[in-house]
Amino acid sequence: MAFDVFGTVVDWRTSIAREASAFFAAAGVAGIDPHAFADQWRGLYQPAMEACRSGGRPYTRLDVLNRETLETLLTDHGIVADPERVADFALAWRRLDPWPDSVAGLTRLKARFPIVTLSNGNVALMLHLARFGGLPWDAILGAEATGVYKPLPQAYLGTADILGIAPEDLCLVAAHHSDLAAARGCGLRTAYVDRPLELGGTPKPDRRAAQDWDFAADSLTELADKLES
Amino acid sequence: MAFDVFGTVVDWRTSIAREASAFFAAAGVAGIDPHAFADQWRGLYQPAMEACRSGGRPYTRLDVLNRETLETLLTDHGIVADPERVADFALAWRRLDPWPDSVAGLTRLKARFPIVTLSNGNVALMLHLARFGGLPWDAILGAEATGVYKPLPQAYLGTADILGIAPEDLCLVAAHHSDLAAARGCGLRTAYVDRPLELGGTPKPDRRAAQDWDFAADSLTELADKLES
Repeated sequence: MAFDVFGTVVDWRTSIAREASAFFAAAGVAGIDPHAFADQWRGLYQPAMEACRSGGRPYTRLDVLNRETLETLLTDHGIVADPERVADFALAWRRLDPWPDSVAGLTRLKARFPIVTLSNGNVALMLHLARFGGLPWDAILGAEATGVYKPLPQAYLGTADILGIAPEDLCLVAAHHSDLAAARGCGLRTAYVDRPLELGGTPKPDRRAAQDWDFAADSLTELADKLES
Repeated sequence: MAFDVFGTVVDWRTSIAREASAFFAAAGVAGIDPHAFADQWRGLYQPAMEACRSGGRPYTRLDVLNRETLETLLTDHGIVADPERVADFALAWRRLDPWPDSVAGLTRLKARFPIVTLSNGNVALMLHLARFGGLPWDAILGAEATGVYKPLPQAYLGTADILGIAPEDLCLVAAHHSDLAAARGCGLRTAYVDRPLELGGTPKPDRRAAQDWDFAADSLTELADKLES
């Protein structure tokens, strides 16, 4: 089983807002809503990856893209801060809390199936995130291992290839219909996990892309229930 | 900390001999010493990788090389067996027992440092080996992640690069002086773990390459003792 991570396994928005609050306090910045800042930072994520996906830029690790988009955002807000503090804040994506069911759900799923990441996060980011939250991955695959960002087909197909299995023997678990649709297009099986609080309760932009996925659950523990029965 | 695996973390010779015995019994083969067969199979390992290292052949996963060398060896012995059984035996390298101290030692080291593989085994092989023996890796790196076999420098340097750290911040743990020498040549730190039974008690061919390594221990638990003190 392969997992999307940001939003599916970890609650990036609450965690980035927490890190933003600490950063603003240390930098003496007032008047910026930390959740809005988290949304803005995340908003720069797809365009940054798109430059790599389109072939205009070689594959560049997400840690690097996050640093660049953070600097853009700080400039937009007129914030000047100590470079070391900015570098540390840029790595906030390595310190995101799992959703409350994630560790228990992954641990149960791991007892039956190999569990790997199929995230756009790079290996070092995913490794530190796993250690931060206790995520028991068998391997860290996805964008860096395949050299391309989702939803390009090679991210899904290359992950199955590295695992030495056919695409139909790999199931993507994700909270995003667009991700699952791309995986299904490559022949993978699909499991949707609903994460209504990913954007703080705001509906997801890709809800119109919903399909009848192979599995659907409200948590990773519920997904484990369904796969054990 | 990055770990060599075959011989350092797992006892390949005893495990392959066990699998060979079962294979010979099922195939009705008599008169071949299973430990000698394990040594012969392992003996074809370096030449097979050398074809990739020399540039004569693109990087090819060890699972594939093991299948090829097994078929060569079976032909040499005049053994004809069911292809499915041969395919399963070729994957015996995914089912090797850890040395008695490995899981406890790795678990203790993981509490302090990220622990990754820096092995010539491919990702799927390493993943199944980890699940077979309960090896708690944070990530599976090494040959497949870097696209080259040890002891080429890029295997060591590329692993550090993926981790986002300088070579001197990575320590290779290995039972083979030749591996440690190559790692040191790339600027990595080095930890030697003595595994006198790797070849069943026969002295190691690379013992003349011994150096004064940064750390040395008789087991991974002893290495943990030294690094915790």
